[in-house]
Amino acid sequence: LPGKGRAPGLELDKPAFVSDAQYNRNIPFKTSPEAVRLYRLYNHWMMRTATYFFIFLNLSLALFEEPAVYPLPFLATSVLEVLCLLVFLGRLTHFAKVTLHNVFWKDTKNICIMVAILLSLTDLAVYGVLRLYGVGSIRWSRIVRPVFLINFAESRQIRRAFRSIRNTLPEITYVFLLFTFSLLMFSLMALKLFGERNLQTAEGLPYFRNYLEIVFDLYVLVTTANSPDVMMPAFDFSSWYALFFIAFVIINTYIFMSLFLAVVYNNYKKHLKNEIRKLAYMKRRKMVEAFNLLKEEEGEQFVVREARWKQLVKLVAPDTSSSHRELLLRISDDEQKGFVDKKSFVQLADLLNIQVVTLRIRRHPLARWAPALYGSTPSRLLRRAVRHRAFVWTYDAIILINAIFIALDEESPYISYAEWVFLALYIIEILLKVYTYEPREFFGKTQFWNWFDTLIIIAALTATILNATLKSTMKYNSQQILDIVFILRVLRLIRIVDSIQRFQVIMNTLINIVPTMLTFGGLTLVVYCVFAIIGMELFHGKIQYFPANSNVPHALECGNPALKDSLFARGRYCKNNFNDFASSFIVLMELTVVNQWHDILGMWIQPAKLYFIAFHIVMVIIIVNIFVSFILEAFFVEYSLEKSEVETAIEQKIQELGMGVQEDELQQEQLLDNMESAEHELEGDGGTKPQSKGLVFKIASKRYRTVDALLQRMFEAEIPLEDEGPSFEEILNFNSAG
Amino acid sequence: LPGKGRAPGLELDKPAFVSDAQYNRNIPFKTSPEAVRLYRLYNHWMMRTATYFFIFLNLSLALFEEPAVYPLPFLATSVLEVLCLLVFLGRLTHFAKVTLHNVFWKDTKNICIMVAILLSLTDLAVYGVLRLYGVGSIRWSRIVRPVFLINFAESRQIRRAFRSIRNTLPEITYVFLLFTFSLLMFSLMALKLFGERNLQTAEGLPYFRNYLEIVFDLYVLVTTANSPDVMMPAFDFSSWYALFFIAFVIINTYIFMSLFLAVVYNNYKKHLKNEIRKLAYMKRRKMVEAFNLLKEEEGEQFVVREARWKQLVKLVAPDTSSSHRELLLRISDDEQKGFVDKKSFVQLADLLNIQVVTLRIRRHPLARWAPALYGSTPSRLLRRAVRHRAFVWTYDAIILINAIFIALDEESPYISYAEWVFLALYIIEILLKVYTYEPREFFGKTQFWNWFDTLIIIAALTATILNATLKSTMKYNSQQILDIVFILRVLRLIRIVDSIQRFQVIMNTLINIVPTMLTFGGLTLVVYCVFAIIGMELFHGKIQYFPANSNVPHALECGNPALKDSLFARGRYCKNNFNDFASSFIVLMELTVVNQWHDILGMWIQPAKLYFIAFHIVMVIIIVNIFVSFILEAFFVEYSLEKSEVETAIEQKIQELGMGVQEDELQQEQLLDNMESAEHELEGDGGTKPQSKGLVFKIASKRYRTVDALLQRMFEAEIPLEDEGPSFEEILNFNSAG
Repeated sequence: LPGKGRAPGLELDKPAFVSDAQYNRNIPFKTSPEAVRLYRLYNHWMMRTATYFFIFLNLSLALFEEPAVYPLPFLATSVLEVLCLLVFLGRLTHFAKVTLHNVFWKDTKNICIMVAILLSLTDLAVYGVLRLYGVGSIRWSRIVRPVFLINFAESRQIRRAFRSIRNTLPEITYVFLLFTFSLLMFSLMALKLFGERNLQTAEGLPYFRNYLEIVFDLYVLVTTANSPDVMMPAFDFSSWYALFFIAFVIINTYIFMSLFLAVVYNNYKKHLKNEIRKLAYMKRRKMVEAFNLLKEEEGEQFVVREARWKQLVKLVAPDTSSSHRELLLRISDDEQKGFVDKKSFVQLADLLNIQVVTLRIRRHPLARWAPALYGSTPSRLLRRAVRHRAFVWTYDAIILINAIFIALDEESPYISYAEWVFLALYIIEILLKVYTYEPREFFGKTQFWNWFDTLIIIAALTATILNATLKSTMKYNSQQILDIVFILRVLRLIRIVDSIQRFQVIMNTLINIVPTMLTFGGLTLVVYCVFAIIGMELFHGKIQYFPANSNVPHALECGNPALKDSLFARGRYCKNNFNDFASSFIVLMELTVVNQWHDILGMWIQPAKLYFIAFHIVMVIIIVNIFVSFILEAFFVEYSLEKSEVETAIEQKIQELGMGVQEDELQQEQLLDNMESAEHELEGDGGTKPQSKGLVFKIASKRYRTVDALLQRMFEAEIPLEDEGPSFEEILNFNSAG
Repeated sequence: LPGKGRAPGLELDKPAFVSDAQYNRNIPFKTSPEAVRLYRLYNHWMMRTATYFFIFLNLSLALFEEPAVYPLPFLATSVLEVLCLLVFLGRLTHFAKVTLHNVFWKDTKNICIMVAILLSLTDLAVYGVLRLYGVGSIRWSRIVRPVFLINFAESRQIRRAFRSIRNTLPEITYVFLLFTFSLLMFSLMALKLFGERNLQTAEGLPYFRNYLEIVFDLYVLVTTANSPDVMMPAFDFSSWYALFFIAFVIINTYIFMSLFLAVVYNNYKKHLKNEIRKLAYMKRRKMVEAFNLLKEEEGEQFVVREARWKQLVKLVAPDTSSSHRELLLRISDDEQKGFVDKKSFVQLADLLNIQVVTLRIRRHPLARWAPALYGSTPSRLLRRAVRHRAFVWTYDAIILINAIFIALDEESPYISYAEWVFLALYIIEILLKVYTYEPREFFGKTQFWNWFDTLIIIAALTATILNATLKSTMKYNSQQILDIVFILRVLRLIRIVDSIQRFQVIMNTLINIVPTMLTFGGLTLVVYCVFAIIGMELFHGKIQYFPANSNVPHALECGNPALKDSLFARGRYCKNNFNDFASSFIVLMELTVVNQWHDILGMWIQPAKLYFIAFHIVMVIIIVNIFVSFILEAFFVEYSLEKSEVETAIEQKIQELGMGVQEDELQQEQLLDNMESAEHELEGDGGTKPQSKGLVFKIASKRYRTVDALLQRMFEAEIPLEDEGPSFEEILNFNSAG
């Protein structure tokens, strides 16, 4: 994203190049040198990391507080909590110092944080005092803890997701009302049809007698969790009654649930487009503002002169080399007139975002340190062999054989020796590749599979050696280490997928969406935290888990005689309880998957149903559908890009100047071919061409773009360069308008 | 769709205006008068209906053949089958007579039908002979029966869905392979992690010991059907193992299943667009061809003269009135030059498709028969009251009160009297409305809710009277009639939805998609038939159902001692069997819903798993996803239309001429207002305006358009009128190209 990480240098006399958060909010920052230093500090990566650390520390306190997974004394957790809250307060104060007064107080985000801190402190104090006097009370403020995760500046993506949900709510509500109406109608029919038949369920309970219970049973049927059980008594009575359930499932499960997805997806897409339009226009406008501040008259037009332009670039991106700067200037002022016109100036942010690599310089270190050895015939032959297609095939075959060995029984000593052989083979492969390819390229940022391979192998090697040492010295197999070894061993096999061309598109999309999926991780974390804490307060201790060989009375009934013969006890679900934070998370995960959720809640009291339905609506109907929408959209963007290459105007220009290298071309083989030729020809075609400076622009590969970035450039390709876009106010009102 | 139902008159000397099937296939028909008569007969609605009847008769034979729901002697079913096959043969011969020889034999559709007839006859003969000699055999040819449903001309939609599936297969396969790979990897990990722990499931069976069983268990987990049961033993052993299952569910259930939806949806949309593009271009091209046949030179351009044009319209649409024809001419030749140019000529098909109503003429019959009474003050007041918003509110309130009464217990005699009161109130409502609004408009084709109301009320009245008669004369309550009364009573309440504005958009879309959903019904029928027949052959008689009070040994174990204590028997699933066609359908429906499917198959032998997995892949992964895609697309089209009205050029022209009435405007109230003013002003503004002829063009309302029609006009709005589109060959190759 434009200007990210370069923001600190820019607030000297103009509001351009502001960080992402500002693009969205249009916050005018203070501009004194003191404020700028504070602002730089505020955005320092250490400060950000620290904030995240304390946010997660605060959230994970629930693991140590009563009811705890790892109990800590109340004093310890409360000291930690106060510490976290102080850090948040400090961070907020810091933010207040760099922001204009009225802007800071208008931002609901900041108010939210302050209220949350206040609530937490009050609750903590009250609880502490009551505890001293031996009075039990509820730590209700714990549910506001996710507020910090949502509202601290860096979690823009999570806030965006929440905004998207908020925008979707009205339409979802209408569909939900209609769905509820349908559910109530069907329940009424069911009551009339089956209520007076004196039917019984498989457990011998009365079947479809009470209206509210029917509504709940049919709600569960919508999630398909109690199909076909809920149908069987009526079906046994008369086969025709199956038609009722078929109609119900078609209308409610298939049509209404698809409708929810349609509404969520439609809104998600609309919202995404809006946000991206806003970002693109905002960037354009800020650049125009910057231009207006720096412009001088030149002939009939206003321009920015070369010296000023260079000064600006130096200020904005202090770490660019002078040759890099020359290149940028060459692109911005391609007729070398000594100034940059408006049209070229507004592209600066995009230009700065294009990665630059010094391609020629990167020769293999061994070629520099031991050129005779590295260039010798055996060495050349070896490198050619490694680069050959057959090398890949050989290793694919090895992986397949390895898979068979893994599946075989481990008891035989030969097989456990084989494991060492395979490990050795994989290590040799990596060493050979590093020998052949340039190491820094091989471990480039975007070389996902190389990193993956190497990390897996190193971890497996470490764990296997550790395990072998433990085994031989202490005659003891560490279960944890063995488990990790097993998992790593299987993970190694995944690599085979990348060698099949057809799977690469799918795999790349999957890898691309991982960062955004973390947003959904955050979203899910927030929802889970809130529901887990409420769940613990409501259902804590209702169910106990005892290991299988325990002789506690009612161990099999989860310590609750009322559960005797229930589906819950019969399914051995005792560990699905709300007794601590971790267990609650797992129960909520099971509820997200939806199956058997009526059994999981089976034994709780009536109001629990409301809790479970609320969770289902929030998590399954809204968040899971947003997640599905996101995956759908990611793949649609990917599919539409397969055909039409979206390039920004700048990329075209770079290509025209012959200074561009698609990152795709930087893939191992072509890269190495380039390097080989460099080795042979040495100083072949030098001269005025920019390549001779060892610099080319590296244009981000399709392979590693995020959906956001792709959408943004798709949109930018649509707006003409001359278009300055709507005014600030209009841009900020996109939300309500769209 | 263009030309539909008007096709027979058109093959005299040109291939234009061919029916839908021909648009797709470009079949040149024979053009002798004899052939034309045969073609008309072939397309006669009686012939079509008869074909459908025999197709469904043939399919439903499975109900009467061994193993039968309603057993019939073998002779009867085989005579019926031969009859059906003869009808199909006749239909095919008929088709051969009207089609050119080489075209007929090139069409795989026809070959398919012939092969299917041949196979069925052979199988029937062999089975009959073997039966005579007492040798049992399999009626394997029964699975080819759905071929007739797919291949007979009218089921174009089903064939299109199958083509869409065929096109999707390659991409689905790649994703499926990747998914299978992921499944196998996770299974391998599970084997390594849990295989040697000696864990047991809740039923005391060994847990995760055998690789193939793990693969199956995890496949079931992807469908979420055995969550959380499959996790519990590992989770009980160590809480950390939950992470394995969480990772599995996120990757396989959430990501891969969304990926399947993305692939299916993407292909569905691409395919739909292609088909619609093809249709639109084909129509355009046929019209150009017709023009070239009829054209004469006029000045510098070629035109079709008025006389010829009229002759053509008379031939094509014999049932149009002369005033209607005048109107069409007026639009096609708006400068009244006595000829129609090419551009206007090609629009003829669209023009003919626009419905024409004679609006002014329709005054209330009572106003004509008894004008004094109908126009009297009390009558006017009554009609005004009925048209008032309060009338709707009153009846909404009555419906709500009725809902409460329905939910109350029926035992009290007062409540059953109340039912009569409500019935009377509803009948009065309908009578009042018919009195106030013009009856033919009130029961117009597109007045869904009026039809719905009236039919429900009449049915409820009939059933209630029938029931009361039976009760008083024979002291006997017919269960079936009572059930129907209950259902009708509840269905009446649905009407309240339509009076809430916000729900109308959703409801209208839902009503619009019903016709296309029938296509999916057909698709599902085909898949179900094939799987049901295979299922009956494989699993017939393995499980018996005995009523609850039966004293047959092992009645609770479904007559199968091996099922003792199984989840299957415990859930009282005995009626979920493949003992007859109807039961098989219900089992397949339960498998489509997916839940508990591993229990449903629980007791069958290993190969059954393959059958169940095959069904899951075909039905859930492909067909249900296509269904979801279809619903998503329908709503997206609806949403995109809410904002931008898509109008064809012709509609614009009609509006310009002031001859258009949007069907929306024809809604009851506005319509009646029009009529009122007509009553008052009588012959106000006559003259040259077309309305004076009592004719306006009725432009199809958004409310009742199908997705196909909407997409077609969206696409047509994009192609300029001058564009004749690609050549026939190109159009026909769209499929492979797109």
